[in-house]
Parts: sequence; structure tokens; C-alpha cells
Amino acid sequence: MSTPPRIREATDEDWPHIWPFFRAICAEGETYVYPYEPTEDEGRAMWVERPPGLTVVAVDAAGAVLGSAKMGPNRPGPGAHVATASYMVAPEAAGRGVGRALGEHSLKWAREQGYRGMQYNAVVESNAPAVHLWQSIGMRIIGTVPEAYKSRRHGYVGIHVMYQKLG
Amino acid sequence: MSTPPRIREATDEDWPHIWPFFRAICAEGETYVYPYEPTEDEGRAMWVERPPGLTVVAVDAAGAVLGSAKMGPNRPGPGAHVATASYMVAPEAAGRGVGRALGEHSLKWAREQGYRGMQYNAVVESNAPAVHLWQSIGMRIIGTVPEAYKSRRHGYVGIHVMYQKLG
Repeated sequence: MSTPPRIREATDEDWPHIWPFFRAICAEGETYVYPYEPTEDEGRAMWVERPPGLTVVAVDAAGAVLGSAKMGPNRPGPGAHVATASYMVAPEAAGRGVGRALGEHSLKWAREQGYRGMQYNAVVESNAPAVHLWQSIGMRIIGTVPEAYKSRRHGYVGIHVMYQKLG
Repeated sequence: MSTPPRIREATDEDWPHIWPFFRAICAEGETYVYPYEPTEDEGRAMWVERPPGLTVVAVDAAGAVLGSAKMGPNRPGPGAHVATASYMVAPEAAGRGVGRALGEHSLKWAREQGYRGMQYNAVVESNAPAVHLWQSIGMRIIGTVPEAYKSRRHGYVGIHVMYQKLG
């Protein structure tokens, strides 16, 4: 087993290391409801959060970026007490616990910030490893919107809304 | 009974008539997960859709704006085949069928545009008249995120995700 990845706040210097897998994951069209081909500026605007949100990276012992997560309020105003988060792992870093480390970090962060719950708005049903991973860190499926995701590989599949109470 | 409201595409000249009830509905904090006090520019940016989306107004026989709706793809990329819509009715026009007319119009529009479903992302559980109205035009509750909305009147209440298949 390799060392667990370290999670730290992302800096401007990290974006060039995030962008290649961000772009690849969008283009793949299997896991995210993002545009298939965002420009780099659009990608940065979608991923790099400003306070009260936060973007982090997972890095290995040598400092290489293995994945990234963003987190913050799911909604403004009367919905701002529920957090949301999104996670991306570089394809070459799959299977090393990066997604789990990012997920656990975001839950810890949300608890510390005083959020009352964590909501994932769009977990693609056919992305079974992700669904199982999020369930293993306490997220549960609230409901599934049928055929809401057009997977290149599986056709129309459902999108789960997932949630857990915090605190 | 008054004449059913007429629905037409919103123009730049309509915004000053939408803004007063848009602002009041945000400030009330009972039905929308928008900021409590958006600036007018923020409000316009949230409400006035550009293609492929659309913003409409409901007007009475004299041309007065009674309510408004916006509609368009719920998500980009692999989620762009599902529509979403939002509706606001001026408080003084409540009970005149404006919400129903806007809801039916948006479903008709979404069908004509070829969307495969209509999704509402955030229907506040304690807004019973809206929940019942949307159910009466075919929307069903997919799931409810508990305590996701901080109602001024009711405390923490759930947010429904609603959906119907189209076509």
C-alpha cells in the first residue's frame, strides 16, 4: 500500500495539474454533469471555489497532484446550511484511496464549518464505485431521477441525490 | 372567474415589473433557495434566461405582469436532455391560476423542445400549495432532502426533488 494522500488547500499553481484530468473527466461523459468540452477558463470557474467554499488537492509524498475536491454551501440564502462537494481523481491515480481521502476531508471540513448536512446533487447511477464509496462514508441515496444522465457507455441512466446529516 | 393569464416571452421591458415580486419572494425566505437580498443585477442574472433557455411572463388582459417563469436545460453536457423550470407569481395575483398556467406552459415548451423529462430541483416541503399544484400537473416527488431549507416560519423543512417524464 502506498502512503495515504495528503490533502491541502489548492493554490493557483495547482490548477495546471488539475485541468488535464478535469478535462478528461468532462470529455469522458460518464460521471459528471458538466459540459463535455469546457474551455480552461470555464473549467477553472467551475472548480476553483472562493470563500465560503474551498478547493483542495490530494498530493502524494512527492507533491504530485492525484485528485481534487471542491466544497461549499449547496445553495444560497435559506439553503446555505447544507454543504455540497465534488471530487475528481486523476485516472492514473485510481485505486489508491484518493477519492475516499477527499470525501472524508470534505465531510470533516463541513462539520468544522458548522454545516448541518452534506448533499451530493448528481451522482451517476452507473458509476457504481463512486456510489459505493459515498455510501461507505455515510452518504445515503435520497432519490434517483430516472434517465437523467446520458452515459456514453450505458445510455440513459439515473442520477442519485445523496445526503447525510452532519453534527 | 377572471380570464386565464396569457403567457408570452419576456422582454427587457418586463424586468422592472418582475423585480418587485422577485425581490419580495427572495426576502420572504419561504419558497426559494435564492439569496435573501440579491441586488437587482444578481436577480436579473438569476432569472432572465438566454437560449436554449427561456423566460416568460404571465399577463392579464390589460397587459399587467402577474408572474414569470424561466426554463431551460437542468444541467449541461450529459444532463442537458432534462429540463428544469422556476416560477414566481406576484403576491397580489395569487389564487388566479397564474402558477398553473406558467407550469403548464413550461411543460408544453419542454415537450416541444424535445426534452425527455422535467426536473424541479428544490421545492420547499412546507410550501404545500406549490407541492400540490406541481403534483396536479404530473410532477412527482423523487426524494426529499431533510431539513435542507431554513424557513422563517416553519424552521428547518425538507426540499423535494420533483420529476416527470415527458414525451
